Parts: sequence; structure tokens; C-alpha cells
Amino acid sequence: MRYGKGFLAMLIFDYMEKYDYENLYFCQDKATGLKAVIALHDTTLGPATGGCRMWTYDREEDAIEDALRLARGMTYKYAAAGVNLGGGKAVIIGDPKTQKSEALFRALGRFINILNGRYITGEDVGTTLEDMEYIRMETPYVVTLPEHLGGAGPISPYTAFGTIQALKAAHKHLFGTDSLAGRRVAVQGVGSVGYHVVELLAKEGANLVITDIDLEKAKAVAAKFGAETVAPDKIYEVDCDIFSPCALGAVINDETIPLLKCKIVAGCANNQLKEARHGDLLEEKGIFYVPDYIANAGGTIYDTDRLMYGQHNKERAARNVARIYQTMEAIIRIAKEENIPTYQAADRYAERRIGEIRKVKNI
Amino acid sequence: MRYGKGFLAMLIFDYMEKYDYENLYFCQDKATGLKAVIALHDTTLGPATGGCRMWTYDREEDAIEDALRLARGMTYKYAAAGVNLGGGKAVIIGDPKTQKSEALFRALGRFINILNGRYITGEDVGTTLEDMEYIRMETPYVVTLPEHLGGAGPISPYTAFGTIQALKAAHKHLFGTDSLAGRRVAVQGVGSVGYHVVELLAKEGANLVITDIDLEKAKAVAAKFGAETVAPDKIYEVDCDIFSPCALGAVINDETIPLLKCKIVAGCANNQLKEARHGDLLEEKGIFYVPDYIANAGGTIYDTDRLMYGQHNKERAARNVARIYQTMEAIIRIAKEENIPTYQAADRYAERRIGEIRKVKNI
Repeated sequence: MRYGKGFLAMLIFDYMEKYDYENLYFCQDKATGLKAVIALHDTTLGPATGGCRMWTYDREEDAIEDALRLARGMTYKYAAAGVNLGGGKAVIIGDPKTQKSEALFRALGRFINILNGRYITGEDVGTTLEDMEYIRMETPYVVTLPEHLGGAGPISPYTAFGTIQALKAAHKHLFGTDSLAGRRVAVQGVGSVGYHVVELLAKEGANLVITDIDLEKAKAVAAKFGAETVAPDKIYEVDCDIFSPCALGAVINDETIPLLKCKIVAGCANNQLKEARHGDLLEEKGIFYVPDYIANAGGTIYDTDRLMYGQHNKERAARNVARIYQTMEAIIRIAKEENIPTYQAADRYAERRIGEIRKVKNI
Repeated sequence: MRYGKGFLAMLIFDYMEKYDYENLYFCQDKATGLKAVIALHDTTLGPATGGCRMWTYDREEDAIEDALRLARGMTYKYAAAGVNLGGGKAVIIGDPKTQKSEALFRALGRFINILNGRYITGEDVGTTLEDMEYIRMETPYVVTLPEHLGGAGPISPYTAFGTIQALKAAHKHLFGTDSLAGRRVAVQGVGSVGYHVVELLAKEGANLVITDIDLEKAKAVAAKFGAETVAPDKIYEVDCDIFSPCALGAVINDETIPLLKCKIVAGCANNQLKEARHGDLLEEKGIFYVPDYIANAGGTIYDTDRLMYGQHNKERAARNVARIYQTMEAIIRIAKEENIPTYQAADRYAERRIGEIRKVKNI
């Protein structure tokens, strides 16, 4: 398959071979209008797991690209987080506002069930816990569920807790202490996770400057935790020790890097680097980057506890989230030993774990 | 996905929706070089079943096209034959002469096993019983196997037996008798199945004219069964009652139809009509066409007996092959009642069976 442009401007199999994907699975059900793509990247560590996105893709290739790219991201995220799962992702082509139905999600559930546990789905952009309940009617292979069905409950606090662990490891490395007391932190976004990041930082005694596209919301949060606020476009240039992107992706780019005055970037947003080279630029500028998928793995670690141990246990799950600190220490060691930027060291760390387990499996 | 030309010059999902395919499954394994596509068309009647082809496809889209097209053909073949299986097909992209290995087939076997019985594979163009043994090491979902692994043994005699049943039903319809004694039959091809067609026709007392691209082989078979031979390119114009294509596909076309002097076309070759409209042309010319996938279903019925009943039973399997006679009668009734050519009536018959069973399943 040769698409016109973009990263999938190659044959499907060439792409799958290049990044060693195991399977790509097309699901069609005329009766319900279901058109879904499930990508299974690498199941060395465990079943391919990752959320189910629903989106009005303009082109079929964009849906395939999304499924493939996101599945691979999940492989790295789980591997680095010490979770025994592989990377997978489902994508439904359709408008989440108008094209959802019980029948559609149950049709997808039946297709997922055929894979017999090789792929485990969950909530993602465009899907809700209610949609997961429909899928769950047809298959047990759903991780994100309401608590009455065995789900973990709200995970945002644990994502935020993980972000703080990663930040503390970086802080210890740079300043010799875990304590964030008195440190000036600029937080971008006080949504579900960002709010909890602010809360935890306030508890640590950090000095906070926050913003949000909803500035009224930022002001309310600021009042609660004794923070300052700035306009959304001013957050990059705040004179601070730590910049914490907790909202949009691609905020570390050619425009923002020259503005940054921090020593550390550590936040819970996905895909913070616009391109890989922006990780190099941070490094050159002497800014320490906590890789996004390490910093925001807490929710995933917490959420998937049930898959590892049969039943969700909040204490055990939280303990495993806390280990992000040690993971970040290991990544810092690799970065130092191999003289590479931290974003590359995180990939190296994940790949090494998969490589080691692959060897064990081949015995 | 929009390919340059051909029948797949549309998006994968548009094509899947048009003909209501359930799944398309890409399998990649870098270590063994495996690149395979498995198409699952319709599993209303049972697991999607169909052989595994290995071929050096020039273009990825050709492999996808082959898998999709052949899977749908299997749905119709099983449905019309009264077999409780759905249509599926696997395609390995690679050179069967140089790219085969135990590891490659076992990698495919593992991927097939993930589908947990939703797809059952078998021998096809470019694969052998030995390859099936490798797949069988990883999954029980293989139909074509050596007898020591539960396989049915040689199936060509049963394919030929089925062809004769379909022919007899047509003959009864046209001439009021099942007996082929004294009928002049032109047989094209005396390969594994064609040989047995000739043998059975000779037993029936038919008057035989045969050919083969290997004319020496044709002469040897002719000597054994008291047949005449003609050059391969002369077979179409033989003055006969029945023309039996038992070799190449697409032999009923614009060039050959004007030459035909028979009353019936009934053979075991696949895809005899070059295009659907050639079925109409036969009809217009007053030649009765026994649809190819009805005439050659005997081998499939015989081979899949084990899947239906747990263990292969030659007598039961042969009895079910004999039912092709009744199937052909039913198709003739539909053709008459709805005033449509037989090739369309066969599709109608298959679609009706699937429709009826779908209703039962929805109860």
C-alpha cells in the first residue's frame, strides 16, 4: 500500500517490517457500520494493550497510521514502566458524536474477543466508560471499566503522582535532593491530571505559576493552592526551575525552546516533543527533559494492575506507580553512560527490557 | 487505501463493506521474513476456512486482492455445498521455491492460532502437505493434513465424483436420464482430478475425447480408457454433448464460446467463466452451464468432513459428496423459477442458505 504522503507513504508490510509490528487487524460490520483497525505491535512482554480511539478520519490511511503509531508508543510505555503488557491500539473510523451505538461497540467487542486476549482495549479519545461497558458485554478483554465491573476508579491522581516521582528523580540528579520545597514550577494546564500535579506540588512546598486555556479555572485553582497565574501564551517564558507541560502535545518546539528559562521539563502531557530533535535541542540548552511517556505512565500502571494480578488493588498499584522514580534513575544512568539525551535513553531502556524478556521466552 | 488500478482501486474498508467482509488480518514476523494476509469473509455458517497460498506477488495490493477475492469464493462454495464453514483464505507473500522454512510456517501457525479457530487453513497453490505439518505444530486449525495426522488422504477422486454428480443432475434435467452412456464428452485436462473424471465417465459408458497440455499423457490416459485425443487448442470445437473443463480457468470466454458445440459445460476447473457475462452468453447460446464451484466442491466436502464431525469418515464424507446431485437440482429449480442463468442461481442458493442461518443465529 503506497499512500500519497506522510509517514505511511510506503507499503503496509514495509512499514510493519521496519518497526517489527506483529499484526494489523481490520474489522468491518455492515449491520452496525463498524470500521475499525487494531494494531498489535509487540507482545513479547504480554498481550497488546491500548485504548480504543474513535475519530472522523478524513482518510483511511490516517486511521491506519494512528493505530500503528499509537500501538508502538504503548509498547515503549509499558516496557519502560515495568508493566507486563505489549503495545496495541484500536481505532474506530466514525464520528463519536453521531455514530455510536451499543451494537457498534458490541460488534467491536466480538472482534476483539476473537483475538482471545491477544489485544486488550480501553478508553481513549472519543470513547467513554459507557462504551467500554458495551465492549465488555462481548469480551473480558477490556482494561478501563467502571468500578462496579472491576475497574480501578479515577486514575488521574495516580498519573500525577507518577509525574512527581519522575520529576523528583530528575531533581535529585540535578540538585542532590528530592525535596521540591521552594522550587518555582510553571504548570501548563490544570485539567484532570494537571490539577493533581498542582495539588501535589503545593503539598511539596513548591512555588507555583500556573495557566490554562480556561484562565478562570486556572485562577480558581491558583486561589486554592496559593499559586500565581499567567496567560496561556506566557507560561513558556516564566522564570522558573521546572516547566511542567500538562495539557497539549508538541509544546516543546522551535518556537518555545528559546523562551524556556527552566532547568527541568517534566509534565504529564503526551508527545511533548514536536519532533525528536527537540529533545536534542533541550539537551544542548542544558535543560533536563523527563521523557513524557515515563512521566505520565502512572495512570497506566495503576489502571492495568488488575490485568497483572487478577483483581485491582489500590495499594499495590500505587506502590508500582512510585517505582517510576527508580525507572527514571535507570534512564538517567543510561543517558550518562551512553552520552545520549534522556528521550533516547528511555527508548533504550524499554528496548533493552523487551530484548531481555525475548531471550527468556526463547529458552 | 486507494490502489492504482484493478478491483481494489478503492479503500480497503469500502471494499470490505461492499461485499461484507468481517476481517482482514496482516501478519508480519521479521525474524522469519513472514508477510501474510488472512481474509475472513463471512463466518455465519462456521469458521472461515480456506487454503494458504504462497506466491511472489509483484504488488502488496495483489496479495490483498487475492486473499479477499478467494475468501469470498470459499464462502459461496461452502454455503452451496452444505458445509458448515465460512469463507477464508491466507496468502503468504514470498517465493515458494526459495523462501520457505519451518520457522516461517510455524510463525504463520502461531498467528493463525491467535484467531482461536475463527480461521482454518489448508493446502493451496504454492504450499504442500509438509508445510501444513509445520503449521500444525503451532495450531490445530489446519484442515489439509497427511493421513497420519488425521487428514482425509487423496481427495482428487472425490472432487471428480462430485463433478459427475453435478453433471448427472444437469443431464437428467436436459435429457430426462442420469445415464451418461453413449454421451460424447470432451474433457480438457487429465491431471489429478481430470484423470478421475475420465475414469468415472468411462465407467458410465461415455464416449470420450480428451486432451491435455501434455499430449503424451493424454494419449496414455486415452489408451487406458478407450478415448480419442485431440490437440489442446482443438478441444473447444469437438462435436460433443458435454464439454468438461478440468484444467485452466477462464476457458469460457469470447474466443471459445463461438466454437462450442456441446449442450452442457460441466468440469472441475476453477473460475471457468472469464467474466460473469460469459455465463449469460452460454445461456443465450442454449448451453447449460454447471457452475464451477458446485461441480468441484466434492474435494472440499470430503476434506472438511473431520471439521464437521471430529474424525474423518470416508463413507460419510463420500455420501455428502454425492449430495451435490441434489444441490444441483435445487439450483436448476431456482434458475427456472427466477429465470436467471445457473451461475447466478448458484450464488442465490448460497446466499439464501447464509441468510436463513443468520436468522437462526439471531434468535
